[in-house]
Amino acid sequence: MSLNPKRTVTELKELRSLTSDENGAQRVAWTDTWLGARQWFAKKLAELPVEHHYDAAGNSWATLRGVSEKSLLIGGHLDSVPNGGWLDGSLNILAALEVLRRFASEFNDRPPVTIRVVDWADEEGARFGRSLLGSSAFAGTHSIAADRARTDRDGTKLEEALHRCGVEIDRFPEAEQERRNARAYLELHIEQGPVLEQLGLPLGVVLGTKGVERHVITFHGQEAHSGSTPMNVRRDALAAAAKLALEIRNIARKHPDAVCTMGSLKTFPGIVTAVVGRCEAALDQRDLSPRILAEMCREAKEASHRFAEEEKCTVEWSRLWNIEPVTFHADLLELCDQAVCEVSGTSYRMPSGPLHDAAEVSRAGIPAVMMFVQSLGGISHNKVEDTREDHLELSVAALDRLASKTVDWVLGGQHNALSGN
Amino acid sequence: MSLNPKRTVTELKELRSLTSDENGAQRVAWTDTWLGARQWFAKKLAELPVEHHYDAAGNSWATLRGVSEKSLLIGGHLDSVPNGGWLDGSLNILAALEVLRRFASEFNDRPPVTIRVVDWADEEGARFGRSLLGSSAFAGTHSIAADRARTDRDGTKLEEALHRCGVEIDRFPEAEQERRNARAYLELHIEQGPVLEQLGLPLGVVLGTKGVERHVITFHGQEAHSGSTPMNVRRDALAAAAKLALEIRNIARKHPDAVCTMGSLKTFPGIVTAVVGRCEAALDQRDLSPRILAEMCREAKEASHRFAEEEKCTVEWSRLWNIEPVTFHADLLELCDQAVCEVSGTSYRMPSGPLHDAAEVSRAGIPAVMMFVQSLGGISHNKVEDTREDHLELSVAALDRLASKTVDWVLGGQHNALSGN
Repeated sequence: MSLNPKRTVTELKELRSLTSDENGAQRVAWTDTWLGARQWFAKKLAELPVEHHYDAAGNSWATLRGVSEKSLLIGGHLDSVPNGGWLDGSLNILAALEVLRRFASEFNDRPPVTIRVVDWADEEGARFGRSLLGSSAFAGTHSIAADRARTDRDGTKLEEALHRCGVEIDRFPEAEQERRNARAYLELHIEQGPVLEQLGLPLGVVLGTKGVERHVITFHGQEAHSGSTPMNVRRDALAAAAKLALEIRNIARKHPDAVCTMGSLKTFPGIVTAVVGRCEAALDQRDLSPRILAEMCREAKEASHRFAEEEKCTVEWSRLWNIEPVTFHADLLELCDQAVCEVSGTSYRMPSGPLHDAAEVSRAGIPAVMMFVQSLGGISHNKVEDTREDHLELSVAALDRLASKTVDWVLGGQHNALSGN
Repeated sequence: MSLNPKRTVTELKELRSLTSDENGAQRVAWTDTWLGARQWFAKKLAELPVEHHYDAAGNSWATLRGVSEKSLLIGGHLDSVPNGGWLDGSLNILAALEVLRRFASEFNDRPPVTIRVVDWADEEGARFGRSLLGSSAFAGTHSIAADRARTDRDGTKLEEALHRCGVEIDRFPEAEQERRNARAYLELHIEQGPVLEQLGLPLGVVLGTKGVERHVITFHGQEAHSGSTPMNVRRDALAAAAKLALEIRNIARKHPDAVCTMGSLKTFPGIVTAVVGRCEAALDQRDLSPRILAEMCREAKEASHRFAEEEKCTVEWSRLWNIEPVTFHADLLELCDQAVCEVSGTSYRMPSGPLHDAAEVSRAGIPAVMMFVQSLGGISHNKVEDTREDHLELSVAALDRLASKTVDWVLGGQHNALSGN
């Protein structure tokens, strides 16, 4: 049985019909719809000569034992954001399933190395605000103490929601056992941005995931009556924040791949009859270079203090979250280039702005790489998220070629895998 | 019995102790606390030779009949915003009470013209979002059809809240009867701004109330992933709004007394991981000149379209509310100058940014003028709202002198009062 990329598209549609409503995909982690998606996937696995189990963090592992215990991992996630798309996360899972079928068929159920497909638990963090939950447990970068008490909108604790699904947060460290014999990790994903579409390319090679600095910046001015307060005595917190909202774009544009985003701005008291006394802005900065990321963060801080002074305000910064940039493995980038070229004629290397489980795997010292397939309109996390079907099929074929090349690399050409990244 | 301004301060404190809590004054119109304040005031009136009644809009009228039926009105309002100050509105009422006492005493209960003190109902509009409610009924500028169905936070309809206080909204037009024989209107108020304090002056003469243009301006861009969307393809609605937030200040600063305020800005979806797809800004513009007000509004519209185009967004404007500027009566401005000079040595003329009931009275064709007393820190609508006690006493004395001068003007020197404004 040879690779059948059309089947992947059919199965993606099957999953969509099972787990979406009129607003989009509803496979939010730790909900019944998500559990249903996993049961559906488990039935697909049952037709294959694989061992299937859930680890201590709720990650689902399908293992096709090979001649060697050295393992090639291929990962994705079945969970979605609420009102999400049909491809984000699940494309990787179903493409990996097809690759698994091809290996089982071609090697008579026993490929040269062990092939494992992992469905990471709670990549999106949509319900509890903690993304990459399962892969961080695998990588040993989890934050159990901080995460345990997270609550969803209804006040349900993260710990309780996991318990209901048979996962005990205190046992997370046991998931690190799955790293044993792991020699390489591959992840296919929709781009979620407009770059490949603008270049007219179906596929791209992902250099790594950008580091992120995320802060809340609060400007304090003086609430005052809109009618009675002359312009020259105002201490308008919105004015300082507006200057920063514009300046972060200049800061980002100095670097080819950097992005800076003010995604939220809140005004207090926020009424038409009062000058804004307090303004809270959320800033997200990303780049693949740690040096550039640090420089952008410093420049934004300096600018915010300059604007606060100009507007007779004060400013304070509070870090929401940050993560270091992750660069994927040089050898695997080269193999991914080859696979993409063979399937589509041209390869293109680009960083990923969004985070992915591959970043956590890479942080655990396992050589990793990702491949992007074009997103229509650059839109994701939305029911209109889409990719051309011929591009989806190309992506399955390219992932399959990359998997074969990586198996050869694991067997022969690789350096010390656990220190190679 | 001569004028006793210290008593006004004592009575203001008495009212504060009866109607405030630890967060400030709670005399919100149509609430029990407000009704209690009115009962307290009615008891004060009962000691005077006045007729007291409530008109069809709930305005409270105390009438000291004079030799002439021609009437001098002195107005204020006992209602406050929630968590308000002790002076806004009630200073005018208690100063007018003291002036009434002085007239009654000096003229043996029968002054040369009729003196009437009016406590306007619901000046603030704090509960239902409709300010100047009682004075607009008096002036015939009410908007019953639109106001009837307004609701408060708890879903109570304005119509029902008024009914509970014995006021039927359909009878509002009957309040216009109170305009009969009205020849002049005086109103003393705290400035609610920093101008007099900065000039070191206790009192000011109010030229008129600025006109207001109030709009919601919505920029539509494209929601996009903060990480995956390159800077050069973004359609960031916040960027367009930020440019406007800064530009309205340049527009206002071309004119000495103009103000433009963006008091509220809302971002959608308003999350740190998404470029802002939609941004709603509330703009408030004020000036005493109708020409300047119209010019500022046009300039802001033009700027918003320019910024929308620069940011590949679209923009739409929706008028929230507007009111024409009102200029007070030239003769009364002159008399007010005289009274302020006699009491404090210097007079200063200034427009009022906040609206006042005097604007509605003036729109009804009755000659009107207002006097301001200094506000400490320019703060109002807040429990820290304050004015020096010696300044409060000066303001009572100045209002009393202005009342005497206006009585003489009504009797003798005035032109046709009903067409003179």
